[in-house]
Amino acid sequence: MVSRFRGQDILSSEQFDLSALDEIFSVVDRCVPIANGSLKTDVLSGAVLGSLFFEASTRTRLSFDAAFMRLGGSVSATTGVTFSSIVKGESIKDTGRVVGGYFDICVFRHAHEAALEEFANASEVPVINAGNGAGEHPTQALLDIYTIHKEFGKRKKRIEGSCIVLAGDLRYGRTVHSLAKLLSLYGAAEIRLVSPRGLRLPEVIEEKLRDSGHKVSIFSSLEEGLLSSDLVYMTRVQKERIPLAERADHECESFVLDRKLADKVMKKDCVIMHPLPRDSSAGAHDLSDDMDDDDRIAIFRQSDAGVPVRMALFACVLGVEDELEKSSVSPKWTKVRSRL
Amino acid sequence: MVSRFRGQDILSSEQFDLSALDEIFSVVDRCVPIANGSLKTDVLSGAVLGSLFFEASTRTRLSFDAAFMRLGGSVSATTGVTFSSIVKGESIKDTGRVVGGYFDICVFRHAHEAALEEFANASEVPVINAGNGAGEHPTQALLDIYTIHKEFGKRKKRIEGSCIVLAGDLRYGRTVHSLAKLLSLYGAAEIRLVSPRGLRLPEVIEEKLRDSGHKVSIFSSLEEGLLSSDLVYMTRVQKERIPLAERADHECESFVLDRKLADKVMKKDCVIMHPLPRDSSAGAHDLSDDMDDDDRIAIFRQSDAGVPVRMALFACVLGVEDELEKSSVSPKWTKVRSRL
Amino acid sequence: MVSRFRGQDILSSEQFDLSALDEIFSVVDRCVPIANGSLKTDVLSGAVLGSLFFEASTRTRLSFDAAFMRLGGSVSATTGVTFSSIVKGESIKDTGRVVGGYFDICVFRHAHEAALEEFANASEVPVINAGNGAGEHPTQALLDIYTIHKEFGKRKKRIEGSCIVLAGDLRYGRTVHSLAKLLSLYGAAEIRLVSPRGLRLPEVIEEKLRDSGHKVSIFSSLEEGLLSSDLVYMTRVQKERIPLAERADHECESFVLDRKLADKVMKKDCVIMHPLPRDSSAGAHDLSDDMDDDDRIAIFRQSDAGVPVRMALFACVLGVEDELEKSSVSPKWTKVRSRL
Repeated sequence: MVSRFRGQDILSSEQFDLSALDEIFSVVDRCVPIANGSLKTDVLSGAVLGSLFFEASTRTRLSFDAAFMRLGGSVSATTGVTFSSIVKGESIKDTGRVVGGYFDICVFRHAHEAALEEFANASEVPVINAGNGAGEHPTQALLDIYTIHKEFGKRKKRIEGSCIVLAGDLRYGRTVHSLAKLLSLYGAAEIRLVSPRGLRLPEVIEEKLRDSGHKVSIFSSLEEGLLSSDLVYMTRVQKERIPLAERADHECESFVLDRKLADKVMKKDCVIMHPLPRDSSAGAHDLSDDMDDDDRIAIFRQSDAGVPVRMALFACVLGVEDELEKSSVSPKWTKVRSRL
Repeated sequence: MVSRFRGQDILSSEQFDLSALDEIFSVVDRCVPIANGSLKTDVLSGAVLGSLFFEASTRTRLSFDAAFMRLGGSVSATTGVTFSSIVKGESIKDTGRVVGGYFDICVFRHAHEAALEEFANASEVPVINAGNGAGEHPTQALLDIYTIHKEFGKRKKRIEGSCIVLAGDLRYGRTVHSLAKLLSLYGAAEIRLVSPRGLRLPEVIEEKLRDSGHKVSIFSSLEEGLLSSDLVYMTRVQKERIPLAERADHECESFVLDRKLADKVMKKDCVIMHPLPRDSSAGAHDLSDDMDDDDRIAIFRQSDAGVPVRMALFACVLGVEDELEKSSVSPKWTKVRSRL
Repeated sequence: MVSRFRGQDILSSEQFDLSALDEIFSVVDRCVPIANGSLKTDVLSGAVLGSLFFEASTRTRLSFDAAFMRLGGSVSATTGVTFSSIVKGESIKDTGRVVGGYFDICVFRHAHEAALEEFANASEVPVINAGNGAGEHPTQALLDIYTIHKEFGKRKKRIEGSCIVLAGDLRYGRTVHSLAKLLSLYGAAEIRLVSPRGLRLPEVIEEKLRDSGHKVSIFSSLEEGLLSSDLVYMTRVQKERIPLAERADHECESFVLDRKLADKVMKKDCVIMHPLPRDSSAGAHDLSDDMDDDDRIAIFRQSDAGVPVRMALFACVLGVEDELEKSSVSPKWTKVRSRL
């Protein structure tokens, strides 16, 4: 059966409904042994990805690179705002048509939200959105919701009936917006929105959560919001996104989640997620690193999921999702790590 | 039969005579199905290209990347003027000898015209010029003349006997100089040079066109120059190449080619080319985008030709031009584009 | 037999003893025909290297790229200090854990010496040090000592009993420190340290050379130091590493090694090495280029050794050092260089 994503752009998390998520998750599961080096495949050999990052995002770019390469494909990349043609007055439309002509698929990131659609409309090959300004970051949303499934699965829990906390900068945090949209596909959970005043979730997204049947409540105290919760999706306050004039308003007593707080208020089998990077500098209001070795901390399993999730999207768009198993073999090399 | 380009540097469009163009064009034709993803090959597997761009040119770099990768090779790239060894006082000669030692072939671009020869002389592997300052850009010239052949072929025309317009900034436009040199290999065409005063084609190139048997005439009005022509090679005015003091002199009423003008004065089956990027900002004197969907506009078929043309050069230099067919198979993935 | 380096980090030249060097050298020898394009292998196909250069070092980066690609692997790279997550307050520890999760092995370079250990401790895959500030550059040290072996081997000499000169900036030159440590594994040579006053070798390294049984002597005149020597490891004075206040002190009459001086004082079959880049700008105190065509000049054989030495490390760490021969075949392409 041909994937619904074959030949499609992946531009917005709104393209995913529950059955789409099911389809993708099953492909992700099959990508995991290739992503971690237990198997290798050449299913995309001959294919070339254009990795076009007009805004810096090293982590996301490396993750896309690894995903495409692990499927056997090659990656040609450009980074930064120095695309020389655009400096010379070229339209995004021309860039999309010309550069798209070199590749079989493109990953595109741009600081201006509208650039994505212009690029994708002009490109003759499928385009995957790697973040368009304040807009969408659909692959991050996918890896987040995939991780929730996996973590809840291990704990015999479901989104329905659970208590999920979205915490931190809910106003400017693009990843939390996209995740909230995907959570709206489900229902019957308790969703708590915990943020400093001034950094609340946009009303339209809050409404969407309510309309889908979730019980939504608002907190400004992290401790109160986390009480007896099953999962927290913590985000850092991205100071650079906040207008200078507003910053004084956003002060809050404490927005630090550490082991002491988690032990005190959250369930024993709770899950702590974070889109990363987290701010580990002194005085930051963010997730502490004092419980990184604890199984409740899912943040690195979450970031590890980025590679197989992106592999799954590449596989579906390029029509090889059913070739993964039969094209996979053991590599000659061994991925081990021995400490001296 | 071994290609005349085997093991050779590709530094200047002056290296190509008519029989060389014939040889290259026939290899390009065989590269097209691989370039567009209908076939894949591993003919260059194991080979590593050094992609050394000491001057920004994203489009050209990505096109070379795609070309080498589609032949099954790997690409190691550096960009910008920050080559750290050169900052420390290293000569181009040392850079060429050392870096050339890592790779099987190098692509080199540098803002200083003379750096190319110094690098190529020191390198122990073949070097392809991807643009050396005001000097040459031979792969662009090749894809331009290849496109003229293809477009004229579809229209049952030949260069001989046709009316070809070179328009825009003929003084500083490196691509138009290289194309004019290749056109000088042919003869018996009418060549019209249309530019603002002050941006005329250098006399030595104009003489070369005349000496080769072309009828050459000079225009400053775009409308008059285009009248009844078969093909126009339009270039943008690269303001950054014009000394500030001269700019006032270069003003012209209008140097915009749009659908209205093309309909009014050019032949119905005319061909419109452009090396791209074109300047789509307001007030630009360049090719308009108001007829991009028209078959007369060959600019994207032209840019698409960049990949197979560069593949053909790689194949000839590395001696695999006769291995292309037998090494090609259908890829497992499918390159499709479905709009939602 | 499994390599002692399987799954290990390669962080310091102190990890190598004589039997380790023997093991590596024998793998390097088997990598040479793959490095120079006589053979190709797919032994690392499916593996992805993270090439993480947080400090510019184009030459070293390209050499690691070429090494991994020639073994059949893929490389995902980032360069410069602009790793966007770190700008947002991310710790090196988080970067190491997250980015390490994408790849099978990482190459890491950072201007701050301590960042390496933090990164490597957090990474779940092996890390190879490509230079950590004033600290170590173990792959450079390996290619240097490998080159000494090869050059002495051709001349029927051994380190034991020979006269080896370390010359130039012995205080700040990281490569000379690492090489001196490896020379300390041997003994019974005459080691001469020749530098301007103020740029002497740190005492701790000098003591290590003496303790290992070498006869060590100090010179400030290059001519005197080179007299009747078998090998000179020349380094440039890296002015950027010298505090401004000290520079006046470091003046010396001449620290230029050219053909005239080599002919006058060194043995006829002497070896001249240099870690490169050398400073070829006017007035530089460095190795002259006036005898580059002379067989005594080993500097390019030395830089060429960088690729097979790094291949050998990748092969040992990833456990494929015994698969190199059986996985190697002749490539379809031919690496030739014909001058026009």
